Amino acid sequence: MEQVLTNNLVISIDAMGGDNSPRVVIEGLAIASKKHPDIKFLLFGDSAKVNPILAEFPSLQKHCEVRHCAEMVHNEDKPSQVIRNKNTSMYMAIEAVRKGEAQAVVSAGNTGALMAISKIVLRTITKIHRPAIVSIMPHRTGKYVMLDLGANTECDAINLAEFALMGDILARHALNLEKPRVALLNIGAEEMKGKEEIKQAAKIIKHSHMNIDFIGYIEPHELPNGMADVVIADGFTGNIALKSIEGTAKLVVRLIKDAVKHSILAKFGIPFMLGVMLRIKKTMDPRLYNGAMLVGLNGLTVKSHGGTDALGFSVAVGNAANLVRQNFVTTIKEEIEKVDLDELSQEVFYDMY
Amino acid sequence: MEQVLTNNLVISIDAMGGDNSPRVVIEGLAIASKKHPDIKFLLFGDSAKVNPILAEFPSLQKHCEVRHCAEMVHNEDKPSQVIRNKNTSMYMAIEAVRKGEAQAVVSAGNTGALMAISKIVLRTITKIHRPAIVSIMPHRTGKYVMLDLGANTECDAINLAEFALMGDILARHALNLEKPRVALLNIGAEEMKGKEEIKQAAKIIKHSHMNIDFIGYIEPHELPNGMADVVIADGFTGNIALKSIEGTAKLVVRLIKDAVKHSILAKFGIPFMLGVMLRIKKTMDPRLYNGAMLVGLNGLTVKSHGGTDALGFSVAVGNAANLVRQNFVTTIKEEIEKVDLDELSQEVFYDMY
Repeated sequence: MEQVLTNNLVISIDAMGGDNSPRVVIEGLAIASKKHPDIKFLLFGDSAKVNPILAEFPSLQKHCEVRHCAEMVHNEDKPSQVIRNKNTSMYMAIEAVRKGEAQAVVSAGNTGALMAISKIVLRTITKIHRPAIVSIMPHRTGKYVMLDLGANTECDAINLAEFALMGDILARHALNLEKPRVALLNIGAEEMKGKEEIKQAAKIIKHSHMNIDFIGYIEPHELPNGMADVVIADGFTGNIALKSIEGTAKLVVRLIKDAVKHSILAKFGIPFMLGVMLRIKKTMDPRLYNGAMLVGLNGLTVKSHGGTDALGFSVAVGNAANLVRQNFVTTIKEEIEKVDLDELSQEVFYDMY
Repeated sequence: MEQVLTNNLVISIDAMGGDNSPRVVIEGLAIASKKHPDIKFLLFGDSAKVNPILAEFPSLQKHCEVRHCAEMVHNEDKPSQVIRNKNTSMYMAIEAVRKGEAQAVVSAGNTGALMAISKIVLRTITKIHRPAIVSIMPHRTGKYVMLDLGANTECDAINLAEFALMGDILARHALNLEKPRVALLNIGAEEMKGKEEIKQAAKIIKHSHMNIDFIGYIEPHELPNGMADVVIADGFTGNIALKSIEGTAKLVVRLIKDAVKHSILAKFGIPFMLGVMLRIKKTMDPRLYNGAMLVGLNGLTVKSHGGTDALGFSVAVGNAANLVRQNFVTTIKEEIEKVDLDELSQEVFYDMY
């Protein structure tokens, strides 16, 4: 099993994270490997469980190296516990990025643990106070970047301004936009609306030399219209919006299914509608947007949804690979080096009082 | 036009509120009046504009009394301004409830202004620190009550506990439930998750003698499953969730329409699917859930969506009428009288530190 990884695109994998690990993880890697044959995978997990499943995928196996870990992080583990155990598959997979053995890590495990270990092991970029969880989301005609989706329950204005900076860089690279439109998520469009930290963040972003195309506030019902390319929120608000969107999309699809099931007439329409339904399902399919990124760290951590399937996991791996190819972490570090956020925010606060 | 209103169900109407007032308002009253012929309406607005439209609906006109107001509240008016002008249609319509001329007021105007004037004129119920905006929302198999939807951007634990109390009473009366399941909106189900004030509110509700069926935290993606009958959040979070839900529901419907429009095959399926689509549209139709209530006041104020049509406005009026018939305000006041929230919260905080 042990083989030298010669190619320089290496991704380390927490094989034990997620609901049906390691099977879903390995099946996901098999899909990803077909699409990205240049990636080598460093798998961290219980080799007694990993190896037999991996043996089912000989063409994937050639691209893998399995490193045995006796322990794993569980869903109910607290961040304060998991950072003390260096023998879990999650810890060791992240550690591989710090050591330079891999350029990114993907895990479907406990989000809080993943963020806590990533912060301890990879450390936060100088000048960034708090890393954030970012995801790429669908709107009517394209995609947008949204952060923070849950890493930081409480955020101050400077945190939000830093998220704007990181989101702008991500949108330029991952969405290939020259000048992304950046907005703060709020409950109204007027300047006086919302929380104090949001109003202050707007001032910092507007008056700073960040060189961001800041378009002001955006309300959640406007997100699907594609008016903003980057949407900034504290982790609590972002998580509430994300889960409200997911729940409603599922509800509508469910209502359609239920209604068709109970209508004889509608059943005759299925053959005509199938193409349309499949296209919409594809647009909204959460698996195709799987793979949230932890940004603001000296290394790339990608979080897969814990309940996703092999296709979903493969998308998260593909996201990680693309960001590595684009040298995302180095770019963020270099661009942030140019901005003095502390000084800017002091100026803004000085103006305010 | 002036006639004595003999029946005792009287609702005062801000005829000038909303996007297409007074036309939409009057057309909405015409629909409501057919369904609730026992209601008398006190219309406040510019009589030169109101009377000609009202004349188009002779059977409604019999149930109306128009009171001329020279001024109105505009969308961009700040709450601090509007409370000083007693001559607006909104102010006078609310004032009619305080005077006992009407038992409820309905307005499609500026929400911030409506709450500010209602607080000044009707005053907050003794023992309740802050009124909230409540709405009845659809889930997969029924309805739930959600508050606060935007009246209070920042809330402490006691505010949230009070919302739970008011929501419980509302669900018992408006949804006709014996023992509503009450939950706090949060970003995780575990006790340690979320903001400090949410955790504290959970303790207050759990340890109090409020006699509420408190089921803990609910995440936004679970709302459509009907696991809770009452969902509690601060006004910022509630508004974010509400608007995320509205936006996504619209997006999915829009995606279906767009996709069908661009598929020749799908067009043949329309006759078969029409019944199903109409049924879903009806389940999700925001007009049928129009009419948010301002609770915690000595009087009933109902807020209609500013952009709704006549049907939507009529639903808001119907909501107001039903709550008046159920003696909602008196019930809330009586039930809250029985609970000593301040003492309870002190006990809980004492335990915590």
